[in-house]
Amino acid sequence: MKILVINPNISLSVSELIRNEAQRAALPGTQITMATAPFGVAYIETPGEAAVGAYASLQLLAQQQAEHDVAVIAAFGDPGVTAAKELLDIPVVGLTESAVATAFLLGGRFAIVGISQRIGAWYVQTVDQLGLSSRMIGYRGLQQGFASVGTVQQEARDVLREMCLACVEQDGADSIILAGAPLAGLAREIADDVPVPLIDGVGSAIRMAEALGRGAYAPRRNGALSPPPRKAHQGLEGGLAMLIGRQP
Amino acid sequence: MKILVINPNISLSVSELIRNEAQRAALPGTQITMATAPFGVAYIETPGEAAVGAYASLQLLAQQQAEHDVAVIAAFGDPGVTAAKELLDIPVVGLTESAVATAFLLGGRFAIVGISQRIGAWYVQTVDQLGLSSRMIGYRGLQQGFASVGTVQQEARDVLREMCLACVEQDGADSIILAGAPLAGLAREIADDVPVPLIDGVGSAIRMAEALGRGAYAPRRNGALSPPPRKAHQGLEGGLAMLIGRQP
Amino acid sequence: MKILVINPNISLSVSELIRNEAQRAALPGTQITMATAPFGVAYIETPGEAAVGAYASLQLLAQQQAEHDVAVIAAFGDPGVTAAKELLDIPVVGLTESAVATAFLLGGRFAIVGISQRIGAWYVQTVDQLGLSSRMIGYRGLQQGFASVGTVQQEARDVLREMCLACVEQDGADSIILAGAPLAGLAREIADDVPVPLIDGVGSAIRMAEALGRGAYAPRRNGALSPPPRKAHQGLEGGLAMLIGRQP
Amino acid sequence: MKILVINPNISLSVSELIRNEAQRAALPGTQITMATAPFGVAYIETPGEAAVGAYASLQLLAQQQAEHDVAVIAAFGDPGVTAAKELLDIPVVGLTESAVATAFLLGGRFAIVGISQRIGAWYVQTVDQLGLSSRMIGYRGLQQGFASVGTVQQEARDVLREMCLACVEQDGADSIILAGAPLAGLAREIADDVPVPLIDGVGSAIRMAEALGRGAYAPRRNGALSPPPRKAHQGLEGGLAMLIGRQP
Amino acid sequence: MKILVINPNISLSVSELIRNEAQRAALPGTQITMATAPFGVAYIETPGEAAVGAYASLQLLAQQQAEHDVAVIAAFGDPGVTAAKELLDIPVVGLTESAVATAFLLGGRFAIVGISQRIGAWYVQTVDQLGLSSRMIGYRGLQQGFASVGTVQQEARDVLREMCLACVEQDGADSIILAGAPLAGLAREIADDVPVPLIDGVGSAIRMAEALGRGAYAPRRNGALSPPPRKAHQGLEGGLAMLIGRQP
Amino acid sequence: MKILVINPNISLSVSELIRNEAQRAALPGTQITMATAPFGVAYIETPGEAAVGAYASLQLLAQQQAEHDVAVIAAFGDPGVTAAKELLDIPVVGLTESAVATAFLLGGRFAIVGISQRIGAWYVQTVDQLGLSSRMIGYRGLQQGFASVGTVQQEARDVLREMCLACVEQDGADSIILAGAPLAGLAREIADDVPVPLIDGVGSAIRMAEALGRGAYAPRRNGALSPPPRKAHQGLEGGLAMLIGRQP
Repeated sequence: MKILVINPNISLSVSELIRNEAQRAALPGTQITMATAPFGVAYIETPGEAAVGAYASLQLLAQQQAEHDVAVIAAFGDPGVTAAKELLDIPVVGLTESAVATAFLLGGRFAIVGISQRIGAWYVQTVDQLGLSSRMIGYRGLQQGFASVGTVQQEARDVLREMCLACVEQDGADSIILAGAPLAGLAREIADDVPVPLIDGVGSAIRMAEALGRGAYAPRRNGALSPPPRKAHQGLEGGLAMLIGRQP
Repeated sequence: MKILVINPNISLSVSELIRNEAQRAALPGTQITMATAPFGVAYIETPGEAAVGAYASLQLLAQQQAEHDVAVIAAFGDPGVTAAKELLDIPVVGLTESAVATAFLLGGRFAIVGISQRIGAWYVQTVDQLGLSSRMIGYRGLQQGFASVGTVQQEARDVLREMCLACVEQDGADSIILAGAPLAGLAREIADDVPVPLIDGVGSAIRMAEALGRGAYAPRRNGALSPPPRKAHQGLEGGLAMLIGRQP
Repeated sequence: MKILVINPNISLSVSELIRNEAQRAALPGTQITMATAPFGVAYIETPGEAAVGAYASLQLLAQQQAEHDVAVIAAFGDPGVTAAKELLDIPVVGLTESAVATAFLLGGRFAIVGISQRIGAWYVQTVDQLGLSSRMIGYRGLQQGFASVGTVQQEARDVLREMCLACVEQDGADSIILAGAPLAGLAREIADDVPVPLIDGVGSAIRMAEALGRGAYAPRRNGALSPPPRKAHQGLEGGLAMLIGRQP
Repeated sequence: MKILVINPNISLSVSELIRNEAQRAALPGTQITMATAPFGVAYIETPGEAAVGAYASLQLLAQQQAEHDVAVIAAFGDPGVTAAKELLDIPVVGLTESAVATAFLLGGRFAIVGISQRIGAWYVQTVDQLGLSSRMIGYRGLQQGFASVGTVQQEARDVLREMCLACVEQDGADSIILAGAPLAGLAREIADDVPVPLIDGVGSAIRMAEALGRGAYAPRRNGALSPPPRKAHQGLEGGLAMLIGRQP
Repeated sequence: MKILVINPNISLSVSELIRNEAQRAALPGTQITMATAPFGVAYIETPGEAAVGAYASLQLLAQQQAEHDVAVIAAFGDPGVTAAKELLDIPVVGLTESAVATAFLLGGRFAIVGISQRIGAWYVQTVDQLGLSSRMIGYRGLQQGFASVGTVQQEARDVLREMCLACVEQDGADSIILAGAPLAGLAREIADDVPVPLIDGVGSAIRMAEALGRGAYAPRRNGALSPPPRKAHQGLEGGLAMLIGRQP
Repeated sequence: MKILVINPNISLSVSELIRNEAQRAALPGTQITMATAPFGVAYIETPGEAAVGAYASLQLLAQQQAEHDVAVIAAFGDPGVTAAKELLDIPVVGLTESAVATAFLLGGRFAIVGISQRIGAWYVQTVDQLGLSSRMIGYRGLQQGFASVGTVQQEARDVLREMCLACVEQDGADSIILAGAPLAGLAREIADDVPVPLIDGVGSAIRMAEALGRGAYAPRRNGALSPPPRKAHQGLEGGLAMLIGRQP
């Protein structure tokens, strides 16, 4: 199986984190293609930045989807994922929806731990729009700054682990999602210290993408998520123009 | 008051409809600046197309917001509106949220009438994400095609009026939103034939934008809708780069 | 435009606060008619008191609606507003629904700040019944008593401002509604001290009433908010008798 | 036990229906006091009429509550019930909440059958505000007029029974509430023809009132449903004045 | 009336508490039959234990239902209650749904107080599945262990009373449910110390069971709660086999 | 990986269907152990039957879990799944939650198609209790009887396919879940005839179980889904006794 993984941000260091965790999580025969946004921000923290990342993701997906079986947009908050599900013929999953589906199957209620206070509002909103806020018990985010988004998980490991424990002991979480590509891989490293399952966004997305790919679901030919009706357009980058205008 | 009105689609004929209805609805002293997306589709019908329109809208707002008091993104479905509320210092409203707020104040439950079947799923989702689906009673859309989005309201006037009557008599609507910039102005023309209030998206957005502008609300300096924290970025068009990177 | 403004309470000092803020918020050509309840309490704090204020408001509206274009019931909690929307042919808005619609358009989630602890339960219930509790982030009310409802905003200004800051810093409010006619005008005075928009109930109600009035929506002739079917009645004050029995 | 039963409408013929069914449903030792609104309409069909009935009910309760153990406001839609729970020291129940609690305990989802189309919107809203709309499966109401509200259950018996069958066979109702005091007693008469439990509003309210009375719950001395804080008032009928101003 | 009361746990000491409170709450002519689970745990604290208690309850009900008018499953969390409503021809109520219906009729929002922290998650889930979580304000449970489930109410009386006061003063509860059969009778003993109604699970269940029994509702012959369609089965204890296979 | 698959019903023919589809869906190295309930019904259609199947499933799981990495309870409606998540140390998934998580990741809203009308109410309730009813668009079930649950998918293939098309064309489904173990494998056979993804319960459960197993999530040692606190018990079958009493 060939999985196209999009980093909707410009951070090459985060792309490396994503690629490593993706490879580690994938089945032996799975091939990972990693693509990084050519424009945008270092990491998406707000709906405004997500709108930029969504557009960058759609352009990358349109350019590179060919010969892939499934795609992953590897930022929490799932920028562009709903749009991509409709525009592409292959399944596309986001980090939030994959982590949340994993928590849903593990059972009970989940907490989310992330890299800033500000980013929490967007995550809460994302889970709400997915329809699963009744299963979410709370968000905890770093209050301190960090030197680099590529190393924040090393810089703040102790604080992040303490936040996980607080999610269990104070909030009653039955599982915890370590949110955001910059935390890829951390779940494995601190799992022994936390008494409930820790869910890695990238790892769960790869496994969920493989589950969908193996399911061999046919593209939608009807309904609200089938390709948009053909209509006039202009100024769209080539791949995107083809996706939007292809329905007969 | 100066209102910047964005058509997130490429249709100049629809921009004319919007401009006319906006002028008609505005207070005597209000100035309307009309801007049309330089790239995108003829009219947004799906989340995929909305992601394109959102990015185009943010670029136009970033370029032209200076010296305006408030902005309107004049497409139903409110592409880019949440992002724009955060990125800009002036209030920004969408057609859906303005029409829905008007229906909310008129009381009871509202129906939405639009120009296609396909577009309905996106409208339902938009109202749901605004948090007001408990006040929405249903959607009815044209089942027939049309020659031009700029003339669809003339082409299909009788059918649209019949759909409004069905919303009242079969669905129990207490008011009806005529959705989408292509229907701008139709509400005035068929109001006498329908026994509940008809709400025009463009007209209600202009009046709501004026209400916010007259309220003189200060820009947010804190919280989830204040400008995003400064961070590294690249490849963003000039205005957008300034908006995203401006918080100290 | 002529707006009939009802104070559903007996406090003439509060009627003066309302009138002043209404005049200040209104468009140049708008005429304000102020009416004060002849029976009831000093200020409504509970559902029991609201049932009294609702009946007093309906009587006043029935007596004085003629020659007005729109009406405002100027108490938070919106006593009698749903009933009045149905009974009258002109649009009627309440302070809660107008403030909440304004917060809805400004975006994100709002907090409410009010003059007592007790009154909070009623406000929460009102927002819930309007269908917008998903956009409300919390209520904070004065814990101290006050000498007079007409001067509470001067007496407790510092505490009220601190409560606003707590709504932002501790609760994450994106805007704050200063609830209740006794706080009319306070928003303007402390806006510079609070980093998110402050919404005045009276000011927002006047602007929303004008928006509806300018929309020129026709009275409902069908459905759940059209005038009630004619039926036997007795003992009703004249205006009210006419409103209830008028449908042919 | 002594139960005060309020008919918030002026129809003496309906008061007789209520009294008869109340006596039949009550325990041997229970005494029923029946009181009929001195002003208002023949039967409440809308929120506007309910605001009138709420005020009439509160006046009657304030005058006659002494020496009663519990009170029932005997109109569907529960006009004034929330207010009365707060103002009175004895428990007060409405027909809707009692019937709905009975359906809740019988299990599954309930339908409501009533005497007009128009009245349905108000009933739906009442159940929604009680927080139990997830257990309600639909409303069906008479489409025909009737000669008298006191005899509608005889006039339309066949149609009402057919509507009950449609609730089961087409809507999937697990129980059916026959709504409104004018239908008091009908459930017993057509129960054999309908394959799910039929719930009588008056009968279930009497039994629920007795259950609360036997529970001997103490009056609330704290919180949002305790008596309202003492404050200035004027123009209130004697009993009501005493209720509103009694908290020290 | 004859009420079959099931203790789905093996604790005979708790059966005695239940029997005593049931007798005390019942009408003079009511006969109580008490049955204790022959297998299971000392007291149900989790969904896993509830699945065991549900099966034990169904076996007991199937064996002993004959000649009873109504049944009560006397454990909070209502193990097996939904199943029993469908399988039996007589009404069956649980402690949670009866207490919650009582709180619903008393008005406002209720808190639940119980005997352990762990048990709270299951209670919250039960109320949520009943559809009434909008009326629940919170749960507080003992943090300390106890010597015996039959004497926990004596051992921890002071702490339980303090938790009730905290529900009122800190959480804003309008009534409090003392949850779980091991607390049967405690409400009467500490009612004077708490300023809102205290609801006893066993007492409210008996009164609600009597209300349903007196309503004389016919068994369901159609729909989702009528007896299950006849189908092949094996290995079921005699009474249960008859219940599951009886529909023609 | 070793997966223990439980058929909570007594039908060996359905166990064969499950085993075949499970083997086909599994990764090359996965081993499937199939276990069939020794007591219960031919197929679970109602909550009453599900309570029996839940207990049978827990007994089988307790007996056979050793040396497995993950377990599947292979009946739609997920009997015993919540209990098993808590009692076992290995992940346990149900058919409903796995199919629903798959539909959630494919995007949009799903419909469910099943083998009887009656079973629909239980499926709707199951999805509601999982917290995902906002993503479910409807249920359609066979109205006709069938000769054998092991051959119903052959007997009714044409009708089932027509129901799928109706879900898309009339209800607007974006994906369809073919519900119930008796339909295992049908999705593959009729996928070409339906223009949206068809989701097989058994296949999606196996893939989701593998995703959880590969995630190597540690057992919960704290919180509402950790093993229940040790307490007295009696009469439990050996494996179950060990699971319930094992926490120190």
